[in-house]
Amino acid sequence: MLLHLSTWPEVEDYLTRSQAIIFPIGSTEQHGPTGLIGTDAICAEIVAKGVGTATQALVGPTINVGMALHHTAFPGSVSLRPSTLIALLQDYVKPLARAGFTRFYLINGHGGNVATVKAAFSEIYAALADSQVPNADRVRCRLANWYQCSTVYQLAKDLYGAQEGSHATPSEVALTQYAYPEAIRQATLDPQVAPAGHPIYGATDFRRAYPDGRMGSNPDLATPEQGQQFYERAVKELSSDYLKFIGDE
Amino acid sequence: MLLHLSTWPEVEDYLTRSQAIIFPIGSTEQHGPTGLIGTDAICAEIVAKGVGTATQALVGPTINVGMALHHTAFPGSVSLRPSTLIALLQDYVKPLARAGFTRFYLINGHGGNVATVKAAFSEIYAALADSQVPNADRVRCRLANWYQCSTVYQLAKDLYGAQEGSHATPSEVALTQYAYPEAIRQATLDPQVAPAGHPIYGATDFRRAYPDGRMGSNPDLATPEQGQQFYERAVKELSSDYLKFIGDE
Amino acid sequence: MLLHLSTWPEVEDYLTRSQAIIFPIGSTEQHGPTGLIGTDAICAEIVAKGVGTATQALVGPTINVGMALHHTAFPGSVSLRPSTLIALLQDYVKPLARAGFTRFYLINGHGGNVATVKAAFSEIYAALADSQVPNADRVRCRLANWYQCSTVYQLAKDLYGAQEGSHATPSEVALTQYAYPEAIRQATLDPQVAPAGHPIYGATDFRRAYPDGRMGSNPDLATPEQGQQFYERAVKELSSDYLKFIGDE
Amino acid sequence: MLLHLSTWPEVEDYLTRSQAIIFPIGSTEQHGPTGLIGTDAICAEIVAKGVGTATQALVGPTINVGMALHHTAFPGSVSLRPSTLIALLQDYVKPLARAGFTRFYLINGHGGNVATVKAAFSEIYAALADSQVPNADRVRCRLANWYQCSTVYQLAKDLYGAQEGSHATPSEVALTQYAYPEAIRQATLDPQVAPAGHPIYGATDFRRAYPDGRMGSNPDLATPEQGQQFYERAVKELSSDYLKFIGDE
Amino acid sequence: MLLHLSTWPEVEDYLTRSQAIIFPIGSTEQHGPTGLIGTDAICAEIVAKGVGTATQALVGPTINVGMALHHTAFPGSVSLRPSTLIALLQDYVKPLARAGFTRFYLINGHGGNVATVKAAFSEIYAALADSQVPNADRVRCRLANWYQCSTVYQLAKDLYGAQEGSHATPSEVALTQYAYPEAIRQATLDPQVAPAGHPIYGATDFRRAYPDGRMGSNPDLATPEQGQQFYERAVKELSSDYLKFIGDE
Amino acid sequence: MLLHLSTWPEVEDYLTRSQAIIFPIGSTEQHGPTGLIGTDAICAEIVAKGVGTATQALVGPTINVGMALHHTAFPGSVSLRPSTLIALLQDYVKPLARAGFTRFYLINGHGGNVATVKAAFSEIYAALADSQVPNADRVRCRLANWYQCSTVYQLAKDLYGAQEGSHATPSEVALTQYAYPEAIRQATLDPQVAPAGHPIYGATDFRRAYPDGRMGSNPDLATPEQGQQFYERAVKELSSDYLKFIGDE
Repeated sequence: MLLHLSTWPEVEDYLTRSQAIIFPIGSTEQHGPTGLIGTDAICAEIVAKGVGTATQALVGPTINVGMALHHTAFPGSVSLRPSTLIALLQDYVKPLARAGFTRFYLINGHGGNVATVKAAFSEIYAALADSQVPNADRVRCRLANWYQCSTVYQLAKDLYGAQEGSHATPSEVALTQYAYPEAIRQATLDPQVAPAGHPIYGATDFRRAYPDGRMGSNPDLATPEQGQQFYERAVKELSSDYLKFIGDE
Repeated sequence: MLLHLSTWPEVEDYLTRSQAIIFPIGSTEQHGPTGLIGTDAICAEIVAKGVGTATQALVGPTINVGMALHHTAFPGSVSLRPSTLIALLQDYVKPLARAGFTRFYLINGHGGNVATVKAAFSEIYAALADSQVPNADRVRCRLANWYQCSTVYQLAKDLYGAQEGSHATPSEVALTQYAYPEAIRQATLDPQVAPAGHPIYGATDFRRAYPDGRMGSNPDLATPEQGQQFYERAVKELSSDYLKFIGDE
Repeated sequence: MLLHLSTWPEVEDYLTRSQAIIFPIGSTEQHGPTGLIGTDAICAEIVAKGVGTATQALVGPTINVGMALHHTAFPGSVSLRPSTLIALLQDYVKPLARAGFTRFYLINGHGGNVATVKAAFSEIYAALADSQVPNADRVRCRLANWYQCSTVYQLAKDLYGAQEGSHATPSEVALTQYAYPEAIRQATLDPQVAPAGHPIYGATDFRRAYPDGRMGSNPDLATPEQGQQFYERAVKELSSDYLKFIGDE
Repeated sequence: MLLHLSTWPEVEDYLTRSQAIIFPIGSTEQHGPTGLIGTDAICAEIVAKGVGTATQALVGPTINVGMALHHTAFPGSVSLRPSTLIALLQDYVKPLARAGFTRFYLINGHGGNVATVKAAFSEIYAALADSQVPNADRVRCRLANWYQCSTVYQLAKDLYGAQEGSHATPSEVALTQYAYPEAIRQATLDPQVAPAGHPIYGATDFRRAYPDGRMGSNPDLATPEQGQQFYERAVKELSSDYLKFIGDE
Repeated sequence: MLLHLSTWPEVEDYLTRSQAIIFPIGSTEQHGPTGLIGTDAICAEIVAKGVGTATQALVGPTINVGMALHHTAFPGSVSLRPSTLIALLQDYVKPLARAGFTRFYLINGHGGNVATVKAAFSEIYAALADSQVPNADRVRCRLANWYQCSTVYQLAKDLYGAQEGSHATPSEVALTQYAYPEAIRQATLDPQVAPAGHPIYGATDFRRAYPDGRMGSNPDLATPEQGQQFYERAVKELSSDYLKFIGDE
Repeated sequence: MLLHLSTWPEVEDYLTRSQAIIFPIGSTEQHGPTGLIGTDAICAEIVAKGVGTATQALVGPTINVGMALHHTAFPGSVSLRPSTLIALLQDYVKPLARAGFTRFYLINGHGGNVATVKAAFSEIYAALADSQVPNADRVRCRLANWYQCSTVYQLAKDLYGAQEGSHATPSEVALTQYAYPEAIRQATLDPQVAPAGHPIYGATDFRRAYPDGRMGSNPDLATPEQGQQFYERAVKELSSDYLKFIGDE
């Protein structure tokens, strides 16, 4: 059930059955010479929709732009500052909490979002505690990274070994190929496997260390069929995690 | 050309031809008993994609949640505060401006966004003037409301007369029906034409004045075929407006 | 009744009769070679005082500096950023709402304020909904632009036709001449009618397009006598609008 | 020379002679049973205009609302939060500094503003140091409290002794009587001299300690003639201080 | 009783006896060629611990970095912006107020903190008034500057006369020598007594006026024995002030 | 070399040898019935001082209050909101970066700080990129959690097994016992090993799940001798990590 394709009476009805909502959160950032700029949002969205279908959960619209400041030295990257993303997430949660939602499940496609989203959760709980929202102290938020599902992680390791890397990875590229087969890109990667090991600092530093945007990865290995496998594993594992999350006292 | 389905080298290449980008901006808010919560985002997105195709413009990801605080007494509505939306738009523009974009064209589906987006533009120009962004004083932003295209407005008037109303209108519902025919809703509207004339203040006040969320409209009049007509008119008119915008000295 | 020339027991007494207050809001910005920098504040203030007298309303002190960032490439212009003006208006409303005021009527003299003030209203309603202010959901704000009164608009059209323009207009200059006849300026305008048609972007861009600060206007046409006519029409029309605003359920 | 009654070419011309500007800053807050709510703004404004005339300085519009949170338990009081006032002052200074102003002289009528204004100055210098404003490190701000002029202080002591008190004082009431003789109020003060000695904490606490709003004062002692004396002394002393301020290397 | 060396059940128990807490607040800023960068924090901390012991008060951890923007042209200086320090102090007070603390006593070692801390107090009271904190209107904050104790001031005058100066003073240096005798520095001061009289503006201006960082002082006069005298006087006087503060109705 | 016990000429001299600085960051929060409220700050500080000595690094003052909102339902806990901590860290870095520091190494004692500090780093890099700080793109920040050193982790596992838990752990308690043997607390723990497994949400929820504040730990196992072992391992491992950090190109 997609929030965008629902009416408010349907949401009102849904709230009698469940007080949980899923939001996909991605990013709009360079993913190397062949990875799509929307990779992280695409992955989060397709997985979230799958989880929504599997669990009959309400799925909100995708947060397309996340925290990707370190990618902004490449054209086409967009990013919220952490403080903006914190404010945004507060704003998302408050009216829904007021309407009765108490469980917020974010399916995330971008490692760079993790710190800020977790910080935002803390700020949200504290803000709610001073709000007029009833049951404010019952609100719980959870961040679930599809790429860190154990079954996903294992498959990536089996398929790509060390060439999975950590940005513009074949696993995420495969998932976007499954989602948008018409948008598969080919290009000569040079080197075939990108350099790795340099920590992430600012945007200029990032581009110096990773000239084509990839971090340790060889996205040439990706296929749409593998993408489907990642999709199925992520949906299965996160569906289970979601159900546990909403079932907890 | 969709930013999310492009790579950074493709954006780099695009920048040699054009320094303009389109962003659809909508809202996630109640649209009466039969209108979809995503109506404004859906409309903005489909029109923006159409304009992108017609003009070979780059289209960024949809800003799905806008300024809809007055709708938040209905379950399922989400909103940014104006100050958050201002921060968000600043964050969108800055890295793209640094990368060389100078024209930002927002295709908007929600009246409630207009004031905040215009305020944001002012804040953006001032912030850029104190940034290290080269050519900061060449950056221009423009907000284009699809529903205010003269040809759209005329068609709505011809088709629906006063029953167009001003929220959950048949014209926007028709456009969503064209975009998502599988999500067409039917429900008894009571009264058939919603009340009108009460100004918009806060969320509680809004719901008191407009109990089912509609403002003066009769969305039952909408059909997908009309939606297509709206789509075509909006795309044509905004494509022309976009080309003029990017062509201006 | 002017707030600044009242005592708190008088305000307490006023609150037993009315819960409404008027604030003039203007700007401090260039108005071309002959228009006063305080034009927008002067116009808003004189009209607000007139409305206050006509309706026995309480009139607060003038908000002298508004949102005029696009004028700041001319010396003497001052501006709040939109986010600051939003914060300011929140701060104005909250203690007065706590004291029992529920209707806030802003008489505005500057087009550049409109977007930000409307955004501020939304932010105010939402903030009040989470405050400890009793009757927070009864608070209503309204922005009334004196220059958009239909009778004012008609008079400007009759007197000046297209030479009214849209900034440093003869109508607003006339009103300041009526208010401050001792401050009437004469200067050679070149061209007599300023250029028009360029949209408003940032401050540097504005000055490039409008070198002497006027937009499409010929303020030479203004006379203090016309100013008086504008004054009387604006006061009459806004008094009626104010009474309707405070009378609405 | 009043900024509001000047044109931008006149300001441009002024800048060739002086790079200094005066802003009166007051407050909108209760001043006891007989003191005007605008007292602090009225006093700052009249003195600032006097100094402007005496020194040929440019005088900006009055900042009518200051930091008066502790007075907001009395109806009619309005206040900016300190953080808003800091933002406001930054916004005032930046465009003027960009235009060439380097000396900002604030004539203040309200003790409650002092801490926040001084904090704002620090924030302004630091913000300018990271701005694109030329000569940013030459910008200097000074806060001058008319009521702390030594000659003013001495006169108040001579005239009223301990009955001067510290809020709704006879000296400031006298000055408003001189400025607005038509707005002189009479009321029975009970007790004749207000209680004193309780430190200032929050608004509720303030009203508990000072039930009619006065702090240790007997404003019945004030006369317009004394007000004129205060005016003349403050103008003389601050004119001298202003000239020294702008003359300093 | 030090908060950092206590457990939460001990704090719970303390709250049954007292609802007051002391926080030392200092700064991290240059103190001339021989003064320690931590001078203000060291002084505030040692005095606060002494007052805590003398009065059996709970003493929180030292706020080591304060508002020292004007010192930041010297290497090693750190500073919060005023707006950050205001936010910080709000954050400190709110959870403690929620836990039952109502009296916050800040022992301060840095003149540059005074304005911002006082502004913060105002912002805190207003924020609490809109929070869910019980007894919010009973919260009181007080700032006590050890260097302004009358007995301290007198001793400094007796010992150093005009060579006390106003920054990197022998009195504060003496107190740090008493606290950290192992960190006493010697250096040739040139001139022996630093220049004085230039007001404080921005950081660059400050360093131009005060090339070695001292303001009017001769810290060579300091001895650890004098430091002990300052310590004892400050502890005695502030203990008395603290007890009065917490005893007031 | 401690910043607080240094002079600015010494820092200037240090900068000719190294452009790195260490800051300990802890928290002020409940640590169960026997753990000290300052545990995380104490641990970070002692380890940081050890690393400073071992590597001749400059060590700044301890950030005593971190992000501990989830602990604030226990008396004595204090916390910054994430957005405040982000602002604070920006403020710390900017003047030091301007002075020439390019490497910021934070030794952290509190898991709750991690997300916010990482978010802050991103915000810092982006802010510096728009500042006037020379070499802004050379600034690098690193967060090092002493409790996650592999040798520390191994020792905790060997000594305590599953009774290490995740809050108020015997390892951190042991380290505080080593640092402050005079502050060792004894109390009956009931149950001996605290419950575990409940995720962290808001403060009220946290206290419901963890009634005495501990998470899965048995701090009774701690001894000062073990604390010394933890100290030595952490200092050794982080010294090595620090030297690598500052040595990297």
